[in-house]
Amino acid sequence: MSLPPDPPLHFRLHVFICTNRRPDDNPRGSCAGRGSEALREHLKDAQKRLGLKDVRINSAGCLDRCGHGPVLVIYPEGVWYSFATTADLDEILDAHLVKGGRVPRLMVDDPAKPQ
Amino acid sequence: MSLPPDPPLHFRLHVFICTNRRPDDNPRGSCAGRGSEALREHLKDAQKRLGLKDVRINSAGCLDRCGHGPVLVIYPEGVWYSFATTADLDEILDAHLVKGGRVPRLMVDDPAKPQ
Repeated sequence: MSLPPDPPLHFRLHVFICTNRRPDDNPRGSCAGRGSEALREHLKDAQKRLGLKDVRINSAGCLDRCGHGPVLVIYPEGVWYSFATTADLDEILDAHLVKGGRVPRLMVDDPAKPQ
Repeated sequence: MSLPPDPPLHFRLHVFICTNRRPDDNPRGSCAGRGSEALREHLKDAQKRLGLKDVRINSAGCLDRCGHGPVLVIYPEGVWYSFATTADLDEILDAHLVKGGRVPRLMVDDPAKPQ
């Protein structure tokens, strides 16, 4: 079946940051338990300072990649990053969200080794 | 700058349903205030019954399209739907998530009228 073209993207880039929180004694841990909520606030503040209006940064429930957490995914390209610090997010913001590049050292999936 | 190819998509389709809740007296309303949490549970249950494992259904914070709420967005195509009932979601599940088509009557953005 051939489809008519989809409408233009509403956001140039749409970022989803896992802010799922499990109880502290859960052995799987969780992204929020590893600080993702405060890290998300940092990224949103940095975006606002830049005036980057065509990118939306959202919180999301469990993205099911807990072993790599905290994680985020950027669509439409579907690139996943694992981050730990505000400096990691600053690098993703500048290299990927602003300049359209990638931050290979933080990517969850290795482009050289398709899954 | 030319980029190396991105890794394959981790999920064939990734659905984000707004479950943002504002206070009941907020004039903007909210997707959760219009029932999106229970509707999301319906969609997840229906997905599970179908055994549709390459699609991920997530909750998300405010997607900033409140006037159309409840809303969901499906990536990587970035198609937005406005839904009100479990029947709406069943139709999106069958037509879009399973069969790869679209449900034009529920789409937020009209493909015939690019924004």
